[in-house]
Amino acid sequence: MTAETITAADTRINARWLIPVEPFGVVLEHQAVILQGSRILAIVPQAEADQSYRTRETLDLNQHVVLPGLINLHGHTAMSLFRGLADDLPLMTWLNDHIWPAEGKFVSEQFVADGTRLAMAEMLRTGTTTFSDMYFFPEVTAQAAHDTGMRAQICFPLMDMPTVWGSGPEEYLRKGADLIEQWQRDDYIMPAIGPHAPYTVSDGPLGAAVELAQQTGAAIQLHLHETAFEVAEAVKASGQRPLARMADLGVLGANTQCVHMTQIDESDLAHLKMTSAHVVHCPESNLKLASGFCPVQKLLDHDINVTIGTDGAASNNDLDLFGELKTAAMVAKAVAGDAAALSAHKALEMATLSGARALGRDQDIGSLVAGKLADLIAVDLSDPYLQPVYDPASHLVYSNHGRAVSHSWIHGVPQLQDGRLTRIDVPDLVLRVNEWRKQILS
Amino acid sequence: MTAETITAADTRINARWLIPVEPFGVVLEHQAVILQGSRILAIVPQAEADQSYRTRETLDLNQHVVLPGLINLHGHTAMSLFRGLADDLPLMTWLNDHIWPAEGKFVSEQFVADGTRLAMAEMLRTGTTTFSDMYFFPEVTAQAAHDTGMRAQICFPLMDMPTVWGSGPEEYLRKGADLIEQWQRDDYIMPAIGPHAPYTVSDGPLGAAVELAQQTGAAIQLHLHETAFEVAEAVKASGQRPLARMADLGVLGANTQCVHMTQIDESDLAHLKMTSAHVVHCPESNLKLASGFCPVQKLLDHDINVTIGTDGAASNNDLDLFGELKTAAMVAKAVAGDAAALSAHKALEMATLSGARALGRDQDIGSLVAGKLADLIAVDLSDPYLQPVYDPASHLVYSNHGRAVSHSWIHGVPQLQDGRLTRIDVPDLVLRVNEWRKQILS
Repeated sequence: MTAETITAADTRINARWLIPVEPFGVVLEHQAVILQGSRILAIVPQAEADQSYRTRETLDLNQHVVLPGLINLHGHTAMSLFRGLADDLPLMTWLNDHIWPAEGKFVSEQFVADGTRLAMAEMLRTGTTTFSDMYFFPEVTAQAAHDTGMRAQICFPLMDMPTVWGSGPEEYLRKGADLIEQWQRDDYIMPAIGPHAPYTVSDGPLGAAVELAQQTGAAIQLHLHETAFEVAEAVKASGQRPLARMADLGVLGANTQCVHMTQIDESDLAHLKMTSAHVVHCPESNLKLASGFCPVQKLLDHDINVTIGTDGAASNNDLDLFGELKTAAMVAKAVAGDAAALSAHKALEMATLSGARALGRDQDIGSLVAGKLADLIAVDLSDPYLQPVYDPASHLVYSNHGRAVSHSWIHGVPQLQDGRLTRIDVPDLVLRVNEWRKQILS
Repeated sequence: MTAETITAADTRINARWLIPVEPFGVVLEHQAVILQGSRILAIVPQAEADQSYRTRETLDLNQHVVLPGLINLHGHTAMSLFRGLADDLPLMTWLNDHIWPAEGKFVSEQFVADGTRLAMAEMLRTGTTTFSDMYFFPEVTAQAAHDTGMRAQICFPLMDMPTVWGSGPEEYLRKGADLIEQWQRDDYIMPAIGPHAPYTVSDGPLGAAVELAQQTGAAIQLHLHETAFEVAEAVKASGQRPLARMADLGVLGANTQCVHMTQIDESDLAHLKMTSAHVVHCPESNLKLASGFCPVQKLLDHDINVTIGTDGAASNNDLDLFGELKTAAMVAKAVAGDAAALSAHKALEMATLSGARALGRDQDIGSLVAGKLADLIAVDLSDPYLQPVYDPASHLVYSNHGRAVSHSWIHGVPQLQDGRLTRIDVPDLVLRVNEWRKQILS
């Protein structure tokens, strides 16, 4: 035997199955993922790892599939405290009579801190490692995500109306610029601009948002074409579809994320394609609020980048991205009239690499490749009710639920070990949540 | 204090919340459910129970919601052994190139016995207490359900073609008549007639099925209007929609269950209403196979009884009826264009009392009422990611997954205790299932 070079590293994860997402559609077996610091040092067959790496710790995940951490690209995390407060109501009744009054009465810095922790706990438990948020007190959410070590895009809200967070667009933009300045170089936090929607933000603030994005490189995320009503009202008032107006204002671009997009005609397709804007599909929210059906397969056929989000827990009512993927993959088939639409592998890509692309972070996260950041999860497929296992990708999307996620790492740091969160005190969290419940019910 | 009459009974279940389904839309708190033998003796406030009942055992379910056991009204239980074998394929490719060849090669009495046990284990774990099956070797499935103590409607298959179970309609009908004769008076088993679909069964055997149903009182369950293609082909060939042909042949009636029904026009509505036939909605199968959207709210608006089923695990790919309810409630809203369509309570009714009605058993099961059979489940709402709890009905449908089911009783017999099955040896089952996996993969 010749002498081999042995490389020292932190952690070796032996994976029964590995879905790296890059290359697409592949399921590897008996691989070793070698972590060093915050990054993936190597992914090699286990036999090769025996020869080439020595690690401080080794984890045998013999019944697990290892894949990139999931990216939940749209949510209002603190709204988890309103989970199930009002259901089965028409959208405007839901907003006007329930959600907005509750927000006006209860939303504070402490509400956002506690609600964000509740949402992060659920997301970590079910395999999400990166999320996007759009809510009041974004500085609180950013701090909470940073302290927990979750990767997060934090979109500060921008709209014409005063809210609990500020008096109007000027204040939002000023606070937002501070947020971007504060967090722009952070490992975990990606500050971004969150104009609420075309019907709540005038051209002036939208123009200022575009300018801020150009100056700072921050992304823009906005609700867009959520319902047919929204599009019809805009056309009636201005003769223009909202997406066309956004294009005219320069809002659409390669770092713009258009959330919902249930209404898409040929002109919309052209705008999305020409500007390289991204679509954030929120299937369960769209169904539950009767907003409509996003034509996912059609977007993919036009090479438009489609990502996925849960939306807030108040309109979902959970933050389990695996459940969302099942819904997305099933509904896309019925909408396309084609059982081959949005395959299991394509759905997994949507929740990983496509999300990373929308964040402009696909060089760092979204797939398991040597050199990328160590954001990854393991899902235990030994559950009796996941048997038999013919195809782990199929099981992840169609038979799984997020609770089968057993491990996760973000930036190389363990966040979930054998189903237990390492960085959030769950019993304490539940006590605080139930205090909020009492207040809100009283 | 005056002396009170104390009644002795078997079991007292103290429920934090109780959703009896009858009366509709009610959530009661701090109730005691008293079981005696196979039946519910009483449901009373806990304080009253302290005064009036003495039981052999008392179960404190202080964080749980107690409701009727769920009724999964359509499935092919043994197909759980094919879970995830072939996905993301057009329906006819899926059937012709994957499912039918696999069935031809592997389906046997032992396959059905093991596959049925796997399906029953998953259904029991996730809150189903009654299921309907339509598959080969129904005598094996009936025996397996009886031995486990699950309530089951066993539909023997009827079609023109020979299969592994028989040479053709005559043999199916003869064996089916024997099945009915054998099980008709059983506590658990409801033998029934399962003509596969209008396009696979000729008028002759359908007429014989109607005659057998009339002689025995057995129900008829058939796949009907699963796809637009099925309806279009029938109209092209005969000028008649399949449902109209079924009406002419006398197949439709108050003990007929029409599975799928994604295609419904005004004439179909009239036929369903006139005959009091039931619809079995299988939303996840319809989405995943791109079959179409059943207009659930429209059916309910026409007072047609709509029940729910998972279909087989090969086209779902799980048997978690709570997941199916979430899908049903969400999709019904988007299809109706109304966020108030198919409310959480209505969805729960669909999976309980409506199912019981379709089985002709609503005097016995489907709601928690004194005198009915003790088929009930408890769902633990203490999970951190179900917090806060404002409305248990909302959580059951929109935030829950079947694994939160902690207890179940069928016919008064405990089947699930703190999440553990009492009547199925799960480790042994997994070994057998993995033997089948090896055979099928080789």
